[in-house]
Amino acid sequence: MSIFTKIINGEIPSHKVAENDEFIAFLDINPNAKGHTLCVPKQEIDKIFDMEKGLYTRLMDFSYDVAKAIEKTIPCKRVGVAVVGLEVPHVHVHLIPLQDMDDMRFQRKASLTQQEFEETAKQIAANL
Amino acid sequence: MSIFTKIINGEIPSHKVAENDEFIAFLDINPNAKGHTLCVPKQEIDKIFDMEKGLYTRLMDFSYDVAKAIEKTIPCKRVGVAVVGLEVPHVHVHLIPLQDMDDMRFQRKASLTQQEFEETAKQIAANL
Repeated sequence: MSIFTKIINGEIPSHKVAENDEFIAFLDINPNAKGHTLCVPKQEIDKIFDMEKGLYTRLMDFSYDVAKAIEKTIPCKRVGVAVVGLEVPHVHVHLIPLQDMDDMRFQRKASLTQQEFEETAKQIAANL
Repeated sequence: MSIFTKIINGEIPSHKVAENDEFIAFLDINPNAKGHTLCVPKQEIDKIFDMEKGLYTRLMDFSYDVAKAIEKTIPCKRVGVAVVGLEVPHVHVHLIPLQDMDDMRFQRKASLTQQEFEETAKQIAANL
């Protein structure tokens, strides 16, 4: 069972931003930047391009809505998208508020307090 | 006029992989890895989340088909996705065959001969 499935099942807490029957979005706990969010299908699939195309399309549409809410919430040049998946074998779309290219590299990390995580998630959810 | 519009108009040559009325896919000329492909809307829009949702969805669907062809062509652990857009203000979805995380960082670059570019584009196109 992936760490994301444990989050979906409520076994591990998360800062949830959005949820529907098929997908969930929550803040990345080790963010590249404030507002860095993961969009995840509830079905535990390893690789994004192994998803049935309809489910993939709905995930990307869900991610679009979340990205628009992030843009409304976090001052940034734009929201970047990354799908990598070399670490957690459960599809996740990274949505990352960008100031510069280093925000995309997964090397420079932002440090948020518990309260900042909570407020950020609430604000993004309110802008959905 | 963006460099990608010049490619779409045929003013700058490219190694084309796929094309339809709305989108084009061609090899990144400064690739992170062999097979690194860009999927681009013909309409010159700066930010992906400024695209009208239907056009965005069709771009992501087009990118799905191209990614599946890349997976068939290039031995890799998986195909990664990145949308950044801090350099060229014309939406482009990076599809990158991944061996490790450095393939996603836009720092380590692959060197291909003209012939390798041509053959790679042909092979991916044939697998579409």
